Amino acid sequence: MVLYLIPTSLGETDLDRILPAYNNEIVNRLDFFIVEDVRTARRFLKKINPATDIDSKTFYVLNQHTRPEEIAGFLKPLSEGREVGVISEAGCPAIADPGADVVAIAQERGFKVVPLVGPSSILLALMASGFNGQSFAFNGYLPVQPADRTKAIKRLENRAHNEKQSQIFIETPYRNIKMLQDIISVCQPSTRLCIAADITLETEFIRTKTVSNWKNQLPDLNKRPCIFILY
Amino acid sequence: MVLYLIPTSLGETDLDRILPAYNNEIVNRLDFFIVEDVRTARRFLKKINPATDIDSKTFYVLNQHTRPEEIAGFLKPLSEGREVGVISEAGCPAIADPGADVVAIAQERGFKVVPLVGPSSILLALMASGFNGQSFAFNGYLPVQPADRTKAIKRLENRAHNEKQSQIFIETPYRNIKMLQDIISVCQPSTRLCIAADITLETEFIRTKTVSNWKNQLPDLNKRPCIFILY
Repeated sequence: MVLYLIPTSLGETDLDRILPAYNNEIVNRLDFFIVEDVRTARRFLKKINPATDIDSKTFYVLNQHTRPEEIAGFLKPLSEGREVGVISEAGCPAIADPGADVVAIAQERGFKVVPLVGPSSILLALMASGFNGQSFAFNGYLPVQPADRTKAIKRLENRAHNEKQSQIFIETPYRNIKMLQDIISVCQPSTRLCIAADITLETEFIRTKTVSNWKNQLPDLNKRPCIFILY
Repeated sequence: MVLYLIPTSLGETDLDRILPAYNNEIVNRLDFFIVEDVRTARRFLKKINPATDIDSKTFYVLNQHTRPEEIAGFLKPLSEGREVGVISEAGCPAIADPGADVVAIAQERGFKVVPLVGPSSILLALMASGFNGQSFAFNGYLPVQPADRTKAIKRLENRAHNEKQSQIFIETPYRNIKMLQDIISVCQPSTRLCIAADITLETEFIRTKTVSNWKNQLPDLNKRPCIFILY
């Protein structure tokens, strides 16, 4: 039986803009879901199909409080011949979210895992950056403590230059402005930085400039979900 | 004016399975396309909308033979207030294909670049691998020459272990079997390897095992498009 990995939107947007029609077919026929937050997941199912009988669905909550020994239990329907879906809070499950743990267990036990297509802010930002798409790395969050953060930014800049590998990272949205200031003060003026905010939303903004060009004109990134790429 | 990045399928599959309906709207209204191969691009446009008047569309060919000075010319319609689309041979433009060059020029000149959602074999494989999605790198093709290749595989295995960074790479399909043999002979038995073949197709196969477990049962990967991930 199949564990489906079901992407969701990256914010308020029509689902037809960012999800293939096939995903709806799959979601409509599933009764078991592994989710980060039940409320968001219910809302997503209702948006896909307002006629869905939500109360007939079973939700298992997988977040940072879930105990490892619980996770294996979420796959029990698979052993009973039922299909299960993993839904993330935003974007693609198992990319920068706890979903990877349950996928790892499913793989260990030999269950079939099928990923569905959907929006990944990491990949969309990289596509639109104009940077090297033949070699790139996603590094998640950088350290918050100033000395560690400076070191981390320098390390990524060096790797981008020495290995010609685009270096992607993220920040919690309310710290974006600080992050941008840190990048500008740490990196060489000629290093190129792509800033990608509100991807797939009405206010989408994706621009690549040199660090020295950004310095003169900082975009307002406060509280906007944002991807940074150095190259 | 906007440069749209338009993903295509990863092989023979219904477009509704892997592309949002919104992409069709965009494609239908564009008259200028930057493509790797005109024949594949025409076939894609016809599949999206059989009523398309293909002869009214303009195609610019961007491949390894395109001279850098030609590429900027492909963006001329943008300066004239027209929209342009970049279509890749398979999957997402500018990820592991020549599209990134034209995107870089568009960014330099300040044109708006909008990436559309579609299938990326790299991302789908990573989602289904169960490996770390908070830190990962795509490394493209590894060297073919045996000593260099062994060194490259070792380097990626070390980085996967030391930095807890999932290491993704590809191979030309007719050399997949050789690649699998090389990974198995070079890597430690406990290293985990995800093999993802024919992603989004009927014959899709995505399995994660330790190198020692793969050794006993090699899948037939000959000529199947394939992603390898070490962790």
